[in-house]
Amino acid sequence: MFELDSNRPELVKTIEELVEQKRYAELRDKLSPLEAADIASICGDLPEERIPLVFRLLPKELAAEVFVELDSDQQELLIRGFSNTELKEVLDELYLDDTVDIVEEMPAGVVKRILQHSDPDTRKRINDILKYPEDSAGSIMTTEFVDLIATMTVEDALKRIRRTGPDKETINVCYVIDEGRHLMGMLTIRTILLAEEDDIIGDIMERNFIYVRTLDDQEAVARALSRYDFLALPVVDKEERLVGIVTVDDAIDVLQEETTEDIEKMAAILPSDKPYLKTGVFETFRSRIPWLLLLMVSATFTGQIIAGFEDALAAVTVLTAYIPMLMDTGGNCGSQSSVSVIRGISLNEIEFSDLGKVVWKEIRVAVVCGATLAVCNFVKLMLIDHFLFGNLSVTPLVSAVICLTMVCTVFCAKLVGCTLPMLAKRVGFDPAVMASPFITTIVDAISLFIYFRIATALLHV
Amino acid sequence: MFELDSNRPELVKTIEELVEQKRYAELRDKLSPLEAADIASICGDLPEERIPLVFRLLPKELAAEVFVELDSDQQELLIRGFSNTELKEVLDELYLDDTVDIVEEMPAGVVKRILQHSDPDTRKRINDILKYPEDSAGSIMTTEFVDLIATMTVEDALKRIRRTGPDKETINVCYVIDEGRHLMGMLTIRTILLAEEDDIIGDIMERNFIYVRTLDDQEAVARALSRYDFLALPVVDKEERLVGIVTVDDAIDVLQEETTEDIEKMAAILPSDKPYLKTGVFETFRSRIPWLLLLMVSATFTGQIIAGFEDALAAVTVLTAYIPMLMDTGGNCGSQSSVSVIRGISLNEIEFSDLGKVVWKEIRVAVVCGATLAVCNFVKLMLIDHFLFGNLSVTPLVSAVICLTMVCTVFCAKLVGCTLPMLAKRVGFDPAVMASPFITTIVDAISLFIYFRIATALLHV
Repeated sequence: MFELDSNRPELVKTIEELVEQKRYAELRDKLSPLEAADIASICGDLPEERIPLVFRLLPKELAAEVFVELDSDQQELLIRGFSNTELKEVLDELYLDDTVDIVEEMPAGVVKRILQHSDPDTRKRINDILKYPEDSAGSIMTTEFVDLIATMTVEDALKRIRRTGPDKETINVCYVIDEGRHLMGMLTIRTILLAEEDDIIGDIMERNFIYVRTLDDQEAVARALSRYDFLALPVVDKEERLVGIVTVDDAIDVLQEETTEDIEKMAAILPSDKPYLKTGVFETFRSRIPWLLLLMVSATFTGQIIAGFEDALAAVTVLTAYIPMLMDTGGNCGSQSSVSVIRGISLNEIEFSDLGKVVWKEIRVAVVCGATLAVCNFVKLMLIDHFLFGNLSVTPLVSAVICLTMVCTVFCAKLVGCTLPMLAKRVGFDPAVMASPFITTIVDAISLFIYFRIATALLHV
Repeated sequence: MFELDSNRPELVKTIEELVEQKRYAELRDKLSPLEAADIASICGDLPEERIPLVFRLLPKELAAEVFVELDSDQQELLIRGFSNTELKEVLDELYLDDTVDIVEEMPAGVVKRILQHSDPDTRKRINDILKYPEDSAGSIMTTEFVDLIATMTVEDALKRIRRTGPDKETINVCYVIDEGRHLMGMLTIRTILLAEEDDIIGDIMERNFIYVRTLDDQEAVARALSRYDFLALPVVDKEERLVGIVTVDDAIDVLQEETTEDIEKMAAILPSDKPYLKTGVFETFRSRIPWLLLLMVSATFTGQIIAGFEDALAAVTVLTAYIPMLMDTGGNCGSQSSVSVIRGISLNEIEFSDLGKVVWKEIRVAVVCGATLAVCNFVKLMLIDHFLFGNLSVTPLVSAVICLTMVCTVFCAKLVGCTLPMLAKRVGFDPAVMASPFITTIVDAISLFIYFRIATALLHV
């Protein structure tokens, strides 16, 4: 029994010492009770050349589980060091969907060796899954599920589960198919266990259930698993034949990856599928520079607006000092709206048909926010900037210009912030790209334009 | 069988028509095969007064499932309309953790009625769970799990599971306890089913497993479920007695909520636990205005810096036009770094001990990014602004000032962006707050200061 995260740093240290001192028997005893994910993360902290050694100490089944959790670099290193027998042993222990994940990451030479040492049936199944496009339900499904026949009794079904269960990824949900492998129904192991031995599977199975297709988007599938609290979803091919299932653990991984991608896009980063510390400097550079360049160049418009009003600025120089405040507040207001809407779209809470509702809500929020900010800002300008700092060029009229601009900017920012992501979604772009940085650039230009128009009108410059 | 999201909008329309035309028998047939979450979301689109009517048409078990999925406003409406018998019927069908969730959202009067109509044992359990602080493992656990005794045979265990199973939230994982209810081991239903009938539970149970405590943070518990691909985690109290389990479906909800909170904080929004469209205007205003005000006031520093260099700006007015570009690029660079690091911290990929690695990585990325941006910007300034737009005040020297500032700004932005979230985490603040808007405000001030220092030095103004 381990308490969650009770003493991990200490444990890692002890294990590193044991490896160092070659006390392998103790090391084995320390490692075997751990979870595979923890051993894999300990391996991540070890020098590369020690990993095969640690790996060979583990009991076969645990070794396979650890193997799945390792980084692909480490997996490749291990596979290259494996004898053919070792490779076959590990592969035999893996579930098919994990093997496919590994195959997808390996260079061609390693893939060839993996396929050579899988049995013909597994090889065929791996190749079948590899055919599905990335990010499709087919690419994350496993073909190792329990299938039953409608005419079986519960007793027959239990026998079949006991016989085939050890090789299946899950037995918690079983699927009923006809002789053409068409999906007819599903039932949980609980239903089977709680039924009478002579009940007929076809009578107790659930006929109303949701299925997905091999080409469905993996994110939609994962969201469905989460929405309906399912442990697995069946996947059918074009001929409605049951070809696999997607399990909840894979769905959680998909949700996590997709969320990270969304967050990266919102911060103007091209999404990568590697953890931060595993990504090389050049790779990180490549994922960040395109948006930086694009946004830098688009700031030209904002510069042009300032250049266009150079005379006004020269006449009332104090106006320049409030440019950052107006730009930042506009940017923040815009990103608040856009991020709320983008997250709502991701979670399927907001659809395009809600555009009217969203805009109407944002308009009202904008009015209240704008008014509050303007009033507070006016007070601050007069009390702090004018009296406290003694900046006499901050006259009530100048303050009025700034605060009026504030109201208009907030209004435009919220409006642009909530509409752009929805329009992006509508025309098939990713709404997440319409987040803070992009909105900020647009709102900057708008707010400066408003600022100078109001200034020239009210201050007669 | 339903294909995922095949024809939902149509279905909603049909159902609304059936309600309108009072064709209840047909309505019942349409609704019963659907998933509870879908019926609940259809109810969300109906006029309030129709919900009780639709609800009463559903079979008892499905009705309870739908009830759990409804918004708390709608739940309250239904409970207020229920007769005592109806209320008791619904409560009897609910799992304990769902009842607790509902109780937490209801006003005192409704809570009292719910507790009155729960049986004494359930009432005690509800009260026990309500005692745990919000966001703790105790508050999201269910007390309805299968407990076994180590001396049982597999046959005994299966009998116990068949007898008590219908009332348990899950039978997929069973827990072994001693006479003092201390947790001794766990085993999956699969292990039990695949064992021999006369095997002893104590011999086949897993003794190496992870448990959590009632007061552990719900996010840590949810992350553990996801990391280890568990379907449930046992929760023990201070005396190491097993008091409940957290199941994977609740963990997914927690992960989703926590991620939404993180994203909201990154966008300078105070987190709320309601979906966007369900939140009122004033509530949205309240969650957005504090950061807007704070950030608006902090922009004063930036303004002060500009005011301090007013003379330099008056001498070389062209400098003003590039303020937005420098500020935005700095802000974008900073938020790229901070958001990457914040996400890494959330996913437990980055710990405080990695600070050195993170800073070293960001420094190298900053140098490459800064250099690239500066070179591109120099070319753009000379080709577009100078030659194309004919802005002759953009001399090579002015361009050099701008591009040198760019390099320094990018460097500072990336450094501030990666360190602040880690320091925040270290001192116990939420790293997510150290995202874009906050970093932008700091980087604005830094970049302007650098800009004017370089300008005064190189341009001798």
